[in-house]
Amino acid sequence: MSTITAVKTYDFRFPTSLTLSGSDAMNKDPDYSAAYVEIHTSADDGITGCGLVFTIGRGNDVVCRAIDSIGETLRGLEVERLLDSMGLAWDLLVHDSQLRWLGPEKGVEHMAIGALLSALWDMKAKRARKPLWLLLAEMDPEDLVSTLDFRYLSDALRPEEAIDILKDGQSGKQERIEDIRQHGYPGYSTAPGWLGYSDEKMVEIAKRETQEKGFKQIKLKVGQNLDDDIRRLGLARDAIGPDVRLAVDANQVWDVPQAIDWINHFHDFDLAWVEEPTSPDDIIGHATIARAINPIPVATGEQMQNRIMFKQFLQANAFGIMQIDATRVAGPQEIVLEYLLARKFHKIVCPHAGGVGLCEMVCHFAMFDYAAVSCTTQGRMIEYVDNQHEYFVNPVHISQGMYQAPTAPGNGAEMTVETAQRYLHQE
Amino acid sequence: MSTITAVKTYDFRFPTSLTLSGSDAMNKDPDYSAAYVEIHTSADDGITGCGLVFTIGRGNDVVCRAIDSIGETLRGLEVERLLDSMGLAWDLLVHDSQLRWLGPEKGVEHMAIGALLSALWDMKAKRARKPLWLLLAEMDPEDLVSTLDFRYLSDALRPEEAIDILKDGQSGKQERIEDIRQHGYPGYSTAPGWLGYSDEKMVEIAKRETQEKGFKQIKLKVGQNLDDDIRRLGLARDAIGPDVRLAVDANQVWDVPQAIDWINHFHDFDLAWVEEPTSPDDIIGHATIARAINPIPVATGEQMQNRIMFKQFLQANAFGIMQIDATRVAGPQEIVLEYLLARKFHKIVCPHAGGVGLCEMVCHFAMFDYAAVSCTTQGRMIEYVDNQHEYFVNPVHISQGMYQAPTAPGNGAEMTVETAQRYLHQE
Repeated sequence: MSTITAVKTYDFRFPTSLTLSGSDAMNKDPDYSAAYVEIHTSADDGITGCGLVFTIGRGNDVVCRAIDSIGETLRGLEVERLLDSMGLAWDLLVHDSQLRWLGPEKGVEHMAIGALLSALWDMKAKRARKPLWLLLAEMDPEDLVSTLDFRYLSDALRPEEAIDILKDGQSGKQERIEDIRQHGYPGYSTAPGWLGYSDEKMVEIAKRETQEKGFKQIKLKVGQNLDDDIRRLGLARDAIGPDVRLAVDANQVWDVPQAIDWINHFHDFDLAWVEEPTSPDDIIGHATIARAINPIPVATGEQMQNRIMFKQFLQANAFGIMQIDATRVAGPQEIVLEYLLARKFHKIVCPHAGGVGLCEMVCHFAMFDYAAVSCTTQGRMIEYVDNQHEYFVNPVHISQGMYQAPTAPGNGAEMTVETAQRYLHQE
Repeated sequence: MSTITAVKTYDFRFPTSLTLSGSDAMNKDPDYSAAYVEIHTSADDGITGCGLVFTIGRGNDVVCRAIDSIGETLRGLEVERLLDSMGLAWDLLVHDSQLRWLGPEKGVEHMAIGALLSALWDMKAKRARKPLWLLLAEMDPEDLVSTLDFRYLSDALRPEEAIDILKDGQSGKQERIEDIRQHGYPGYSTAPGWLGYSDEKMVEIAKRETQEKGFKQIKLKVGQNLDDDIRRLGLARDAIGPDVRLAVDANQVWDVPQAIDWINHFHDFDLAWVEEPTSPDDIIGHATIARAINPIPVATGEQMQNRIMFKQFLQANAFGIMQIDATRVAGPQEIVLEYLLARKFHKIVCPHAGGVGLCEMVCHFAMFDYAAVSCTTQGRMIEYVDNQHEYFVNPVHISQGMYQAPTAPGNGAEMTVETAQRYLHQE
């Protein structure tokens, strides 16, 4: 038996605004940041549970404070009891009756809870000596479902249905796990797309990413100026040819009527999707846009606050591509629920990544999904941007546009605190 | 010209969990709290701008930290420039491109921004020597609308429509202002309803609130046990008679199918509304419930994160009674937008109150609405609970169930820090 002895946070901020990498129509000058947390225990196994919340600068201190404050609840608790019953850990944090007022289940508090639950799953995976994707894929369906919270979901997905989905996923699972180990999982590149880049730089990177690096899709940021968008899309389509997929991302810049007008100028570019056309809270607005811009699919989800919003986007058929994020919701359990919801409603999930640690973390869920939930990679791919990977103990490895399967135990979030030290934010 | 010299926060926590006042199906043991903020300036007028976020205990420190962190943006700015152009102040805080990632526009950060904008409006009202309700009611329609942010609303409410609504409200405004000054605004009482109270205590308080204090509506908490609910509703209806309105509040305890089953046992009690049947994020769920329990109206809104959610609840006809809160969204400007949306969609607003400072603050918006927006009090009333009023410089005054019009300059949020001092939370 061991207990939790400390919950330690780090406010890392990388000065990415200096290069305009990461710039889009809403985020002019992000400083990619991580509110990073380590959970330490009294066990003699050298294992630290690691988690993080990705932010883009200011307010990262507030997330650290929220993690510290919620982490107090964990201090002194028996580790084994929590790791054996992650549903209990979820209830303890997500359903804290006083903390819930600050959401419920959204924003800073929910992301902070996500970092802590993620760190507990990291510890669970490390103790089992498995990468998280494999731990999840190999869990017994009933055991995995017992950790999930179906509150507010029963009109869309019941535990029995979730168990049935996972039981269906048992067939051929071992072959898919082998496939992941051998070939990895498809990625796509956002590297060419930042709004701060010149046309020449964009074209050059678009060619490099597709012709040299082997990505089968790229994505451009749009929404600042329509003429610029149309010119850049033409240049990009010429650069990559007709067989590589091209997606665009507006980062929530439009109102609903404006989104429809603007996107309807994009029909000539054979777009894979239009991402975040408007507020991530606007289910009805997205449904309206999706109908109006058909056949271009709508994609959204990286800032979707919780499973209750995903449920409604699915019920309202408000998107074609569902995007999930590794650090927006309350950790692995809520992300597994998102994948189960997507499977129930027959939607394609293409995870958001690119921020600090997001590539490292989110690929575990995509691989788990392929092994045990949707059982396919058809039309599915994980975003990739080459940012801050050097600060991770086990950075993702991409080969010919494919995310290679993580083999190290854990969830991918562990940072090399020593090398990142100089980016520790000082008050 | 003067500048902002300091933004000072206080973490006040009142140990209300000791008495079970405030207990409901989701909030077993709240400690009513306030993340209280004062904005100080270099002006020689003795005026402090005051605002707060109401919470129920744990996490109040995180809200204070968010206010401190965002407040840094305001330090050194010219006060007059902000107060003359509150739209600028909104943009500065709500549209900070890095902070927005932590929401956008929801949870801890949005509430913290609300406290700061509220404090600026408090200062603006104090400088004009008017209570906030009167300042808002007397503002020129174009001036008021110029402070509002219609982003993500243009499919439901455009600035021109808002101006038209306010122009319509000019007719008879002076008479309504006089009516408010003379008679006040209707309130209702939640005092009898806490789940921690015995049947006897509930009945005794129900009689006192209606027969002695003159409230025309009471509200009971429900959702823990169906038999208890039915028994308590019967006792309450007997105690208050057929002419007093009776509402119930489930505080988000049910899933959608369960809500429908449960509420359909309530048809005999002539309920004014059922409040918060499920997650405040579930627009589609509320719409389903509203159709299924007709003619009992659904009410919700006290935890609705922003105007984009209110917009959709209105578009989907997902509630009959719209409830707003004084400290959940980004201050007076967003609350004015909520009232304008309600007017456009012909919905009744009955504000949430009862927590620390909520009665003091929210009555300003209801009175502004009566004077200048909906121009009626028909079916409208403000929640009232007798909690922590003694810690406010200008506590609300209720007479025969009516909120009396505040006459002191400001927004009602100013606390008597000296008397509350002993409830300052120590780390």
